Amino acid sequence: MERVYRLVISCPDATGIVAKVSNFLSGHNGWITEANHHADRPSGMFYMRNEIRADSLPFDLEEFETLFQPIAQECGMNWRITDSHQPKKVVLMASKESHCLADILHRWHSNELPCEISCVIANHDHLRSMVEWHDIPFHHVPVDPNNKPKAFAEVSGLIKQYQADTVVLARYMQILPPELCHTHAGRIINIHHSFLPSFAGARPYHQAAERGVKLIGATCHYVTEVLDAGPIIDQDVSRISHRDTVEDMVRLGKDVEKNVLARGLRWHLEDRVIVHGNKTVVFS
Amino acid sequence: MERVYRLVISCPDATGIVAKVSNFLSGHNGWITEANHHADRPSGMFYMRNEIRADSLPFDLEEFETLFQPIAQECGMNWRITDSHQPKKVVLMASKESHCLADILHRWHSNELPCEISCVIANHDHLRSMVEWHDIPFHHVPVDPNNKPKAFAEVSGLIKQYQADTVVLARYMQILPPELCHTHAGRIINIHHSFLPSFAGARPYHQAAERGVKLIGATCHYVTEVLDAGPIIDQDVSRISHRDTVEDMVRLGKDVEKNVLARGLRWHLEDRVIVHGNKTVVFS
Amino acid sequence: MERVYRLVISCPDATGIVAKVSNFLSGHNGWITEANHHADRPSGMFYMRNEIRADSLPFDLEEFETLFQPIAQECGMNWRITDSHQPKKVVLMASKESHCLADILHRWHSNELPCEISCVIANHDHLRSMVEWHDIPFHHVPVDPNNKPKAFAEVSGLIKQYQADTVVLARYMQILPPELCHTHAGRIINIHHSFLPSFAGARPYHQAAERGVKLIGATCHYVTEVLDAGPIIDQDVSRISHRDTVEDMVRLGKDVEKNVLARGLRWHLEDRVIVHGNKTVVFS
Amino acid sequence: MERVYRLVISCPDATGIVAKVSNFLSGHNGWITEANHHADRPSGMFYMRNEIRADSLPFDLEEFETLFQPIAQECGMNWRITDSHQPKKVVLMASKESHCLADILHRWHSNELPCEISCVIANHDHLRSMVEWHDIPFHHVPVDPNNKPKAFAEVSGLIKQYQADTVVLARYMQILPPELCHTHAGRIINIHHSFLPSFAGARPYHQAAERGVKLIGATCHYVTEVLDAGPIIDQDVSRISHRDTVEDMVRLGKDVEKNVLARGLRWHLEDRVIVHGNKTVVFS
Repeated sequence: MERVYRLVISCPDATGIVAKVSNFLSGHNGWITEANHHADRPSGMFYMRNEIRADSLPFDLEEFETLFQPIAQECGMNWRITDSHQPKKVVLMASKESHCLADILHRWHSNELPCEISCVIANHDHLRSMVEWHDIPFHHVPVDPNNKPKAFAEVSGLIKQYQADTVVLARYMQILPPELCHTHAGRIINIHHSFLPSFAGARPYHQAAERGVKLIGATCHYVTEVLDAGPIIDQDVSRISHRDTVEDMVRLGKDVEKNVLARGLRWHLEDRVIVHGNKTVVFS
Repeated sequence: MERVYRLVISCPDATGIVAKVSNFLSGHNGWITEANHHADRPSGMFYMRNEIRADSLPFDLEEFETLFQPIAQECGMNWRITDSHQPKKVVLMASKESHCLADILHRWHSNELPCEISCVIANHDHLRSMVEWHDIPFHHVPVDPNNKPKAFAEVSGLIKQYQADTVVLARYMQILPPELCHTHAGRIINIHHSFLPSFAGARPYHQAAERGVKLIGATCHYVTEVLDAGPIIDQDVSRISHRDTVEDMVRLGKDVEKNVLARGLRWHLEDRVIVHGNKTVVFS
Repeated sequence: MERVYRLVISCPDATGIVAKVSNFLSGHNGWITEANHHADRPSGMFYMRNEIRADSLPFDLEEFETLFQPIAQECGMNWRITDSHQPKKVVLMASKESHCLADILHRWHSNELPCEISCVIANHDHLRSMVEWHDIPFHHVPVDPNNKPKAFAEVSGLIKQYQADTVVLARYMQILPPELCHTHAGRIINIHHSFLPSFAGARPYHQAAERGVKLIGATCHYVTEVLDAGPIIDQDVSRISHRDTVEDMVRLGKDVEKNVLARGLRWHLEDRVIVHGNKTVVFS
Repeated sequence: MERVYRLVISCPDATGIVAKVSNFLSGHNGWITEANHHADRPSGMFYMRNEIRADSLPFDLEEFETLFQPIAQECGMNWRITDSHQPKKVVLMASKESHCLADILHRWHSNELPCEISCVIANHDHLRSMVEWHDIPFHHVPVDPNNKPKAFAEVSGLIKQYQADTVVLARYMQILPPELCHTHAGRIINIHHSFLPSFAGARPYHQAAERGVKLIGATCHYVTEVLDAGPIIDQDVSRISHRDTVEDMVRLGKDVEKNVLARGLRWHLEDRVIVHGNKTVVFS
């Protein structure tokens, strides 16, 4: 795939930002292959993402950063630039349920997901063989009510050891300790099996059956210290009827979960998601 | 349209119910044009709806009721039979917003909704001309914090006067008093502009914007004494993005609201909805 | 609503276009409230749409055009700039079916569609009262196999007389003569009641029933001289089942038709649609 | 899972069919857990599917068949009864593309698809390792323009050898010879990567890009001798935009393809699909 740089910017809205950025790029012959802007009126913030062909620029990322810094400073930008040829390093966390993990592994295996998968960490050993078939390291870190600090220290150590950029909770089913959420803010993605904010917490399909809703859903979001309350990246739903039991919902929900997680993860990996407050801008 | 009887049954599940009912019908040469069954395992209840060509039976509804009564009693049935040529009488209640009202009026005017519309009751006078163009009586019953008992007595009187079977809150925006909800249980349909149980109560689109959801929704449900908590008939959603303001959500939501309400109302009018507990069976 | 200018550009792709345009705008203190770009690789074309707050610029549209002309010329642009406070003038054409017409009239009446509706032209007189209730002129121009040249000359005369920008075939059911299509290329919008290219031509729901499809659809497109083959603006579908008769499809299809037409028309009115070849770029 | 018998019936519509069948069942204490009927007016045909708890009946399938035969004969039924504990035997056929095959294998591995997978036959060797990890026999039967009769004789032999009930073309990309289609009519399921009847034949995503459609789709259907023209089981679509290249469509389409195929296959395996003429009744 063609190598592109992705320039992602958040700053207070003002006249002339696009001109400054596009002048900088065109001044260096940068070929913009995709551009997205968003001016958020309520917050007065401006968001921007550009994809630039790497081979159109006369310098590398490091020099880009140096040269662009004055503009960034002038506009009060929170910004980053990434290289599509330096894919993010992802740690997948799972439990016993295989559907989300298998889906991500297959997409990665088919070159559909632009990332490296550093390892899988699971609190059960069930999925080891599936993971190892993909030549990905599998770490079994059991979690029980008595060993949590130790277990999560191990998890934290593995994330560090693999220098992971991103952690994906592929139906991990354990609540991460606050400090882990905090340290990796905006970099841990969870899939929750309900259309949040409905049915947060445990057993959402049972809650949905109890309430008699006519659609079930799934939500992909960044993890924060507050359970199931982080910035939402994507959501989708599936129609159900009175004939569907909780077991049917679990089965039908799996397809929604894995599709929503794959979509959200893809956008994250391509730097299409910008967190602002407790919401996201998604330049999909 | 062909005249049909609709036989709608709820009873404890047991072997032989379908046989009893279908024997009764075939014994009288009844031609079943549509049949739906549902055995609900958790509650041990059985639900059934048959459409029978009226002209295939040698008797009228009254005699049907007499002859069927022994079977109904034997099986402990909660049942009703209705005649497609005796459409339900509907009272529409509205406020200032026209989209749901205009949609229902147009569907009725185009012979798409099998009902009579007895009148429109509104707490503002804005929509009078639209209603009267359809040759439907319009009653302006203003509601304010100080006149509620009197206003709702008037509403209640109008519903009685028109002998209405069904009341539709087409974005009425006022909370009905508990006794009205109670008297017309299972016969008052509301459209709420959120995907319940998320964002019950006031200003759901503002709540949705605040939470940063990626889909907005609408819910059609029977009204009970608990606000926005009655049995859900239908729901649907519409995709939004970070670019959509609350005003955009309001606009996009209108289409979901009117489609969900029209669908739910149609099913109600055709006796396709059976309430059980706080849920519905919908033989759509 | 805030007054904005909409600058819509097509030109051969090259480095520096965005810089030139945004320099021009920021050089005059133009406040961009929305921006969309698309570089189409296969054709080597670049498409761009900017919304600029009118009150942020020190000049009017005419002067904008004069000042911008050199940049447009330099880049080989096909471009236009429009003013949100000069809404397009729309002629609606209908037959007997009311659903699309009623839907557009109601949206317009509710200030949801940013346009003037100049008049309705229909080849039957059925919908006169509905149109006149909205205080919109209604012209009955009957079309039959023998009077087509005369009838369409009258239609053409009316479009001229009202200085209409846009013609909407709201289930008009007559084929326009080629010269009319040609004269108003990119300005006549049709709704076809199938998911094109399937089921072009007459009685698409019958064709769909015959084929046994599981989804029916509708397509909003610009009219060209080739029947149902013009550039597609929007499409959508609705799920059906074996139980749905052709009559059910017609009924269910109406909702898809009117929603797709309303969405496509709205995008057209806001200058969000750019035709390239036989396709469209839609900056929705 | 609870053992059920599935009684599936097609016959000319008449009064009393349901009564006869339900009398038979209730006369033997049969507990119906799910029942679906459909009277197709245009063809005058009646379709019925009952699920009956196996342990509620005092006899086995063979005796059921003997006892039910008189009723079947009287009503001119085309019928079958199957046992949920004798899952169908499925042969999967694939080429190089893994997404549909991997999806079916994972669902089967997770006990989501009620079938045995007898083997995978592929005309390339690429997917051998994935298949063998699941402990399923993999047969590489290369097909080229010169060896077709021999290759398909081998395929045919394998299907016989494994006594397969059902053949699934999981993006097999080869056209089966007419006699194979004929011998296994109603038992070969294909996934075509377009919303049929649009874009039959080769390279449907290229055709879709050429036409500029705004939704892409997939169709699961029974294979007949006419390419992509057999009875449709299920279809679905995914929204695209001008930004999506053919490569994007291929990627987005994969999710639609695998979901539609999995859904259609599931319905087939549970005897929920009845072919009538070139259409299907699907009791989903």
